[in-house]
Amino acid sequence: MSKTVITAEPGMPLITITREFDAPRDLVFRAHIDPELLVQWLGPRGLITTIDRYDAHDGGTWRYVQKDADGNEYGFHGVFHGIPSPEAIVQTFEFEGVPGHVMLDTTTLEQRDGRTLMRTVSSFQSVEDRDGMIASGMEHGVRDSGDRLEELLARQLAS
Amino acid sequence: MSKTVITAEPGMPLITITREFDAPRDLVFRAHIDPELLVQWLGPRGLITTIDRYDAHDGGTWRYVQKDADGNEYGFHGVFHGIPSPEAIVQTFEFEGVPGHVMLDTTTLEQRDGRTLMRTVSSFQSVEDRDGMIASGMEHGVRDSGDRLEELLARQLAS
Repeated sequence: MSKTVITAEPGMPLITITREFDAPRDLVFRAHIDPELLVQWLGPRGLITTIDRYDAHDGGTWRYVQKDADGNEYGFHGVFHGIPSPEAIVQTFEFEGVPGHVMLDTTTLEQRDGRTLMRTVSSFQSVEDRDGMIASGMEHGVRDSGDRLEELLARQLAS
Repeated sequence: MSKTVITAEPGMPLITITREFDAPRDLVFRAHIDPELLVQWLGPRGLITTIDRYDAHDGGTWRYVQKDADGNEYGFHGVFHGIPSPEAIVQTFEFEGVPGHVMLDTTTLEQRDGRTLMRTVSSFQSVEDRDGMIASGMEHGVRDSGDRLEELLARQLAS
């Protein structure tokens, strides 16, 4: 099984996340822009994701809420920039728990002999913000999301 | 006269622009969010700026067009993230001539004995994008904008 690679160079306001999936690019893309698929893999295991809105077009906005077993809710929202395509999904990302801190995420999907290499670059407003995101324990959620997406893709291909 | 300082560390996907103005913070802030003031200082001298839309609130969008003496038009647009305030104006920025390349700009205004230190940090999707922006000759427009803003503030304070 391919594993998620998270790269965060010291002193740089970027995080790069890559993972290869044994699935065609169009399906991996659909899992990103179809909210019914997205909700099945996004975030750490054990949290329930509810999509409030998800307009995957240029200038469209999205918002979702993740709820843990204790009933705590975590809201996130952002705006798509440009028409989302397998070549690039560009969006801003804000965690409502820390208002004023905005990320700019660029996800590209590259076809490789029927497999797909997903690469997401998150740009931060500062190195401090990037380090804060690392310290928040985002790695756990990113790794779970990658594993859950792999499982979802396998289910979709089997059905 | 205070001058604009542009900082672009090698290998970093950031540009920082600072300038001090002999004007109170509230006026400098107003010059950023009131389109009637903005149009008087934004961009290089010799270009005419026309504002298409400018909704300076959380999630609001803006678009303007700059026209040169030969009639060439350059469109720009973006989205405000968070409620614009003197503490932080956060917005995305796209030049319509190079779609898919998005910047995330954070402007802070700091009061200093009746003067105001303006600081804008532009975050890019990659170091290549940042270097491309430098190579495009943005410096000329940034310096002109700073000088024109200083002139506008002086006019406003004299009237």
